[in-house]
Amino acid sequence: MGTDNLFVKTFLSAWTGQVARINELLESTSDEDLHKEVAPGKNTGVYLIGHLAAVHDALFPLLGFGKKLYPHLEKPFITTPDKSGLEFPPAHELKKCWNDVNTQLLQQYNLLKPEEWLSRHTAVSVEDFAKQSHRNKLNVLISRTTHMSYHHGQLVFLKKK
Amino acid sequence: MGTDNLFVKTFLSAWTGQVARINELLESTSDEDLHKEVAPGKNTGVYLIGHLAAVHDALFPLLGFGKKLYPHLEKPFITTPDKSGLEFPPAHELKKCWNDVNTQLLQQYNLLKPEEWLSRHTAVSVEDFAKQSHRNKLNVLISRTTHMSYHHGQLVFLKKK
Repeated sequence: MGTDNLFVKTFLSAWTGQVARINELLESTSDEDLHKEVAPGKNTGVYLIGHLAAVHDALFPLLGFGKKLYPHLEKPFITTPDKSGLEFPPAHELKKCWNDVNTQLLQQYNLLKPEEWLSRHTAVSVEDFAKQSHRNKLNVLISRTTHMSYHHGQLVFLKKK
Repeated sequence: MGTDNLFVKTFLSAWTGQVARINELLESTSDEDLHKEVAPGKNTGVYLIGHLAAVHDALFPLLGFGKKLYPHLEKPFITTPDKSGLEFPPAHELKKCWNDVNTQLLQQYNLLKPEEWLSRHTAVSVEDFAKQSHRNKLNVLISRTTHMSYHHGQLVFLKKK
């Protein structure tokens, strides 16, 4: 395997590893617990799952894979903070969105060639990318991987001891 | 710049970005707040900073850079859980350890060639690495980057609104 392929394999395994950790947590957390705040006055578990699903869904247009699967998640889980009075879809539906988005993203990831990971994402112009080559698809992937981990560190507080 | 160098540049910027985020948080959090639990019954901020410093310090031997700078951090912050009665160094000392370790790690990172990031770390044998090429230095770096982000997601709960 060439070094470029090994780089990509390593990054992708970090992504899938973080997704798997959150899936494990969801499997061991009841829907009742998921509706609790992760800490007093902070976001609820159900908001964080909706947020993660919405942020990952936004990767389809950002990485040039196509349209969002669940654009209705953007308003309640990205543009609006938790506990603002908006009604959320039920937890089982949010978990389905989360799973669908991640499954289809991985299919798209596997179609990208190593050099395509280093190409620009759609939120940066051709002109800016010429000067800022780090604003590539890989950078977005790593940023979303650490974003998952950030919220995973909060979601674990919902777990019973 | 070759693609290998761009890959390395991209993941090093993820590492330095996470370190910077925790540094920003430390600058805006008082030592008094740092001694509080991030959530009821959970780790204190000061434990998490000691933990992050100790885990990063362990990268020196793991990545073949040499000995730990602060081996005395291992017992209180890795092998022992928080609130077990062990006395901690003062917060300003832990912050110094955290900064020193990160500064010297970055110097070592910058000396590695792209292909060296894909070489084995010292916790995997030559035989195992022949079969499991993903157990490389890069994998360790990404894992520690997401580890930082995981605890950063918890440390932000110490911040005043």
